[in-house]
Amino acid sequence: MQYALYYWTGIQGRGEFIRLALEDAGADYDDVARREGDDAITPFLEGRHAGALPFAPPFLKAGRLVIAQVAEILQYLGPPLELAPESESGRLYAHQLQLTITDIVAEIHDSHHPVASSLYYEDQRSEARRRSKDLRENRLPKFLGYFERVLERNGGRHALRQHSYVDLSLFQLMSGLDYAFPRAMQRLKSELPLLDALTRHVAERPRIAAYLASPRRLTFNQNGIFRHYPELDGPT
Amino acid sequence: MQYALYYWTGIQGRGEFIRLALEDAGADYDDVARREGDDAITPFLEGRHAGALPFAPPFLKAGRLVIAQVAEILQYLGPPLELAPESESGRLYAHQLQLTITDIVAEIHDSHHPVASSLYYEDQRSEARRRSKDLRENRLPKFLGYFERVLERNGGRHALRQHSYVDLSLFQLMSGLDYAFPRAMQRLKSELPLLDALTRHVAERPRIAAYLASPRRLTFNQNGIFRHYPELDGPT
Repeated sequence: MQYALYYWTGIQGRGEFIRLALEDAGADYDDVARREGDDAITPFLEGRHAGALPFAPPFLKAGRLVIAQVAEILQYLGPPLELAPESESGRLYAHQLQLTITDIVAEIHDSHHPVASSLYYEDQRSEARRRSKDLRENRLPKFLGYFERVLERNGGRHALRQHSYVDLSLFQLMSGLDYAFPRAMQRLKSELPLLDALTRHVAERPRIAAYLASPRRLTFNQNGIFRHYPELDGPT
Repeated sequence: MQYALYYWTGIQGRGEFIRLALEDAGADYDDVARREGDDAITPFLEGRHAGALPFAPPFLKAGRLVIAQVAEILQYLGPPLELAPESESGRLYAHQLQLTITDIVAEIHDSHHPVASSLYYEDQRSEARRRSKDLRENRLPKFLGYFERVLERNGGRHALRQHSYVDLSLFQLMSGLDYAFPRAMQRLKSELPLLDALTRHVAERPRIAAYLASPRRLTFNQNGIFRHYPELDGPT
């Protein structure tokens, strides 16, 4: 099947979690807005189509299905892309881990926009300093420590019994955090050897390495979820 | 099957979305921490059990499965409790809507804790004022307006073709917002006739009405997700 992915141009954003799965599997997909522009997204948000109404991109068209929400798209794609376990318990765990990644991704976004997404960073800088301190000192250690334990319970190499979309998303999470909070991550990673190794292993997967070297992989930038503001990265 | 629900005592919190589904279906369930205390939760968070490691409550034990994350638990319970559609497209849509409810619930929590969950409200009151203003003026109209359109596209009475866990969660969302932001909701509801009617219809379902009148339904309070601080509710 050819999949059509709809996500805002110009940023990796939440769409990147889907792209990594499609790229790792060598799937046939059309990154529609990259080709046609963001206007391609509007009709779906306005409901000028049959089927489910998405609240926001990313969403995926798969035949007649319109599927939104990152974790749900990955849950749907996992089996056909061979990026999910076979067992019911394994699939439930994969989805639960992905939903927990979703939670920390939202918190990371809010670290630079703690008041309102609609306001500029500069208009919420003092709030962002306070929130980022809590992110660095409490929330990232809690979430990343959790994922480290998940890896450890499973033998160390993968979040689940085999390579899955969860490993790809953990790679994206760690890569984004390395970009946004290089000083804080330097400190945190000494306690996260398994997550650190997983990040390197994913980057070396042939299709992922090719994707990361291609123009399809946008660089991290100051409009996405992961933004680098040195004043939010804590002490040197 | 008897289900075992694990959630912190003392608040409705995220556990309430699960309780409403179990109660509406007349399911056999054990609300474990309510009986044994919060200590019953700790072994699972510490991984002293087989199976998936939950990040946080609520989680559900169903036979040998340990299932965490509200939306995933409802996705799992939907079919056996007859609270989900039969079709693949309907089930995907149900889950997508539930994940969108999850997103706004997190934003509602952060309106009174925009800096850090670990700090007292009093230590982030000025930030909470700014964030709540954005919630009232931008985010609630956007999310609730979206759910109103979902109802409208579907004929008006239900989010999906039939009664489902999504309707129950929309009831909880609207009820919590009525408690937390009575003035703002008074204004918003004039634009949300279908959501308002759905909330009343759900409250009148016999098992839900019995549950709401029982001691099992805790009252909203100042420790949960939905908190009433008059200074965050906007102008009178």
